Amino acid sequence: MTASRKILALNAFEASRAGDLGAETAAEVERRKRTIGPTSVLFYEKPLHVVSAEGVWLHTADGGRFLDLYNNVPSVGHCNPRVARAVADQVATLNIHTRYLFDVVHAYADRLLATFPAPLDRVAFTCTGSEANDVALRLATIATGRSGFVVTEAAYHGNTSAVSDVSPSSRPGKALAAHVRAIPAPIGKGDVGRRFAENVRAAAESLEQSGHGFAGLLVDTIFSSDGIAADPPGFLREAADLTHGLGALFIADEVQPGFGRTGAGMWGFERHGLLPDVVTLGKPMGNGIPIGGVVAREDLLKDFAESVGYFNTFGGNPVSSAAALAVLDEIEQRGLVANAASVGGYLRDGLRELGRLHEAIGDVRGAGLYVGVDVVGAGGAPDAQAASRLINGLRDRNILIGAAGGFGNVLKIRPPLVLERRHVDIFVDALDACLRAG
Amino acid sequence: MTASRKILALNAFEASRAGDLGAETAAEVERRKRTIGPTSVLFYEKPLHVVSAEGVWLHTADGGRFLDLYNNVPSVGHCNPRVARAVADQVATLNIHTRYLFDVVHAYADRLLATFPAPLDRVAFTCTGSEANDVALRLATIATGRSGFVVTEAAYHGNTSAVSDVSPSSRPGKALAAHVRAIPAPIGKGDVGRRFAENVRAAAESLEQSGHGFAGLLVDTIFSSDGIAADPPGFLREAADLTHGLGALFIADEVQPGFGRTGAGMWGFERHGLLPDVVTLGKPMGNGIPIGGVVAREDLLKDFAESVGYFNTFGGNPVSSAAALAVLDEIEQRGLVANAASVGGYLRDGLRELGRLHEAIGDVRGAGLYVGVDVVGAGGAPDAQAASRLINGLRDRNILIGAAGGFGNVLKIRPPLVLERRHVDIFVDALDACLRAG
Repeated sequence: MTASRKILALNAFEASRAGDLGAETAAEVERRKRTIGPTSVLFYEKPLHVVSAEGVWLHTADGGRFLDLYNNVPSVGHCNPRVARAVADQVATLNIHTRYLFDVVHAYADRLLATFPAPLDRVAFTCTGSEANDVALRLATIATGRSGFVVTEAAYHGNTSAVSDVSPSSRPGKALAAHVRAIPAPIGKGDVGRRFAENVRAAAESLEQSGHGFAGLLVDTIFSSDGIAADPPGFLREAADLTHGLGALFIADEVQPGFGRTGAGMWGFERHGLLPDVVTLGKPMGNGIPIGGVVAREDLLKDFAESVGYFNTFGGNPVSSAAALAVLDEIEQRGLVANAASVGGYLRDGLRELGRLHEAIGDVRGAGLYVGVDVVGAGGAPDAQAASRLINGLRDRNILIGAAGGFGNVLKIRPPLVLERRHVDIFVDALDACLRAG
Repeated sequence: MTASRKILALNAFEASRAGDLGAETAAEVERRKRTIGPTSVLFYEKPLHVVSAEGVWLHTADGGRFLDLYNNVPSVGHCNPRVARAVADQVATLNIHTRYLFDVVHAYADRLLATFPAPLDRVAFTCTGSEANDVALRLATIATGRSGFVVTEAAYHGNTSAVSDVSPSSRPGKALAAHVRAIPAPIGKGDVGRRFAENVRAAAESLEQSGHGFAGLLVDTIFSSDGIAADPPGFLREAADLTHGLGALFIADEVQPGFGRTGAGMWGFERHGLLPDVVTLGKPMGNGIPIGGVVAREDLLKDFAESVGYFNTFGGNPVSSAAALAVLDEIEQRGLVANAASVGGYLRDGLRELGRLHEAIGDVRGAGLYVGVDVVGAGGAPDAQAASRLINGLRDRNILIGAAGGFGNVLKIRPPLVLERRHVDIFVDALDACLRAG
């Protein structure tokens, strides 16, 4: 069983080891198994039957209320009223593909691009982050005439055929595709930036020798599935400069860190003082209404469009654009980037305080409201089983988090950006109680 | 310039040949060019600035009203009130990824699968038809251990890297990928079914000889971008039987013909009396709210899910499922399949009547509300320029249609399924006027 398999299994419901779910939940699990079962794993040993949500809270069929520290898609809050109103108004007014002129679509494109540094001046809308990364790979192969990519060892960039190839965490137990090299995530002690750049250089050389050539370095700028790597800010710069020096593209996958989550501007790459060639967007972009995008220089998107006549039927449609515009309004008008920085810092402080009380809490990493906590056993070794016990223990205390990392031992905490300090207090107290319960 | 390039160019706005657009439209075109320009071609010599829509009508910024015979996505009508209400209610109640139990998602999966013959008993939700076809290709390669696919010469199956490879119409002027064989669409005189099956056999043999092997036959069951092939019903059966005999999968791409459009049941493959191994869904599934899906036997989806740990963040989310459930309700309660058959028949009759009056109108093909009309010149030769004149002439008369076919000379007519006979009368009269105007 590989690392990524472990991550899934940790969080996943498994009928074989489930206790008494109650008749209603058991019936719903069975109904699901008979329809969407094969491709739709449930979370937790006791799955949640969710009926509504608001802000940072999920409500279940049995009247329960769960504090959501897991879901980064509804980043301006579950059922955000402004987003809900924008969607309701737009779906009743106009929703169609983008081969015509539309105010809301153009207004959103203007607003979105205004959040990027000037050379990144064009956007192609998609429906998902996977589709965005699928396009990004092609931008790089067309621009460089090469086909090789460097990614991190437990990276996840999406679910299309091409993107699965560059997502080692989706390929449990399988060899990497010939045109892909995986290097360790920049987590650990010492000069992580230097080490990361050296690994990129070696991987690029290997790609050159294999004949594929080095087309691009594709990284999630917060390294979500690798276990979260954030510090020191700037550590990615050396690898980016090296990539450019080798004539390859730096692709910033902002599907997870983007839209203010890191608390230091809108985009994760900004923390590193670098300029990507291509940026990919997804998850929180429409607060759950499907929309993704690729932001790049005009020349890159033009060459691609002419090469394949790209069009995406639902991409950037008026309803998705209206939702996405409302998300930008919420982030800006409610100061959610600053909130992510402030509440995220308070969260990390609380977790580090717990670390002084409990041996099982190791390194606490992150930026803004994307936080990873190493769960460790004797001698600081990764302890995935203890992480699993904590995740399910928190679930029993009505708090939702997940797992990440190559060893599956990293607590993954990425709540809606509207999280407040009082919610952090609830979580830290509950985690403390779980740790005391053992 | 290849055939598919011609199709795009026919419909596309080109600044270089545009006349006076008016200041407002010109400004909007410029704004768009500066943001989503490269990947977002506009339709028509004079693009439409659309502000709202209802039923089969689009409304423009200058107060115009356009009869929409092009858009197959809002198939239960633009801004369908039931869909709009379902979306508004759900987005204000709950919208989140599907790792939990949800009533609306499970209810939709039940209802959707009930429209399929029994062996097709599981669904994987995606966000787009492209993502669905991307999954379908992998189901076939995993199930057969082979990698080769047979498609038609002007096929379009979507926009991911893998799906672009099996979409010859997306690869203008380029050689096909080594694992793909393209055969003529089953359009023409004589025994089209026999000829099509023979071409499949030859392509499969070529794939076997090349070492790729024959993994699957992937066809749009109404052959939309090839120029629409519908008759005689049943002609696909021989190719499907042959495919199964060779141990390969028959993948029915129902993104365009599905959800009742052909007027003969919910799915295009039903007209042919065959049982696909995999069916892919998209476009009209949520009336414009992004949702797609792959319906297949449990064993195929199970092997795939175990192979790549497939998950799609937005796939089948509660808002998309609620929209899709409302679409099924509309189709069933308003009798839209029967309406497609009836109004579609009336439309073809009207077009054939025009064909007796005008030499430029050649073969009229189709099923239900998917209709193709060959525009021909001297001796019946395809005449793409005349088709373009008709399409833009109709646009000037406030009616929207498109172009299709390997020669770009096929009028593509696929209105919302709520079309009525009075709308057909408007269209046929306008087309008659365009033909008389020359």
